[in-house]
Amino acid sequence: MAKGLLIVLSGPSGVGKGTVCNELRRRLPELVYSVSATTRGPRLGEEHGVNYFFKTREQFLDMIEHDQLLEHAEYVGNYYGTPRDFVEQTIENGKDIILEIEVQGALKVKEKFPEGIFVFLLPPSLDELKGRIQGRGTENQATIDHRMSVAAYEIGLLENYDYAVVNDEIDLACKRIESIVVAEHCKVRSKAKELQIGK
Amino acid sequence: MAKGLLIVLSGPSGVGKGTVCNELRRRLPELVYSVSATTRGPRLGEEHGVNYFFKTREQFLDMIEHDQLLEHAEYVGNYYGTPRDFVEQTIENGKDIILEIEVQGALKVKEKFPEGIFVFLLPPSLDELKGRIQGRGTENQATIDHRMSVAAYEIGLLENYDYAVVNDEIDLACKRIESIVVAEHCKVRSKAKELQIGK
Repeated sequence: MAKGLLIVLSGPSGVGKGTVCNELRRRLPELVYSVSATTRGPRLGEEHGVNYFFKTREQFLDMIEHDQLLEHAEYVGNYYGTPRDFVEQTIENGKDIILEIEVQGALKVKEKFPEGIFVFLLPPSLDELKGRIQGRGTENQATIDHRMSVAAYEIGLLENYDYAVVNDEIDLACKRIESIVVAEHCKVRSKAKELQIGK
Repeated sequence: MAKGLLIVLSGPSGVGKGTVCNELRRRLPELVYSVSATTRGPRLGEEHGVNYFFKTREQFLDMIEHDQLLEHAEYVGNYYGTPRDFVEQTIENGKDIILEIEVQGALKVKEKFPEGIFVFLLPPSLDELKGRIQGRGTENQATIDHRMSVAAYEIGLLENYDYAVVNDEIDLACKRIESIVVAEHCKVRSKAKELQIGK
């Protein structure tokens, strides 16, 4: 059986990663979503293994120590990370898995899992991104300026990715990503000889 | 303006290159078809620059000498070849161009134009290919056996290609190739910095 693919969907904050990822999961029900591990407690309605793998701090540190995470980060006193096992088992079962993650996290995943397909979601322009960040209406000017300079820096990291997809319209962005997945499955890899050409 | 792509569609005789290529041109009217140069005389209804670029033997040999062909071959006393200029000008104008060609020719094109996208059209199985070759009803057993052994050899050259597309159903095969074209346009290349991120 052909292996599945890890698709890493990344891009600057505000570009619409979450919206695109949800729409892709709706369109491609067979696509598996990478579930993160976290030390934060479950919120109402959150299920272990669906929303997160809930771990104690000790368990999480143990996972780090045994290289069981493709990346991890600390945020507001809690750990978050991508369990390697879940990704590898899904792929071995011939299913594709998508991981939605910010830019720094994606680059860490690339170090441990270079065979992943790294997709960078781009805003149509920096002005458009600024509009989206301002549109939330929750940030002051200094925060907006800071986020814009982070976004500009992150877009400079684009060359570390395999594909750049402009999120001008969600439908078009999803079609492009779906095409990338189809094309990657047609790619001739070094294991091409395993191809099922029956006699 | 972003450059276009050269898509080289190849595969063993009998696999359905011509049918898939015609269907792709129907679906993607903006896709340019690579016109061959030939020393054979025009047949009724054939137009210069549409079906072929008709050349004298002297003109053709001159094109070979000045490296103006991406590949060429002699067949039943006539020369056939792929003019480099036509491909390069189309690409420079931002349009994609498709070249339908047999396996040996495609590998020659790859030597001179490695930035092309090389797509190998596969039969669902060797039995299926045999059925298609026999189905023409025009070949004797020795010819069929010979063509099958050539096909098996050519499938062994698959690793020189970028993509393998199974021609199980023409609609599916075309969708896969269309996806490959979309994905290739999203690829981050070394010139990623030229990307039109305004501001």
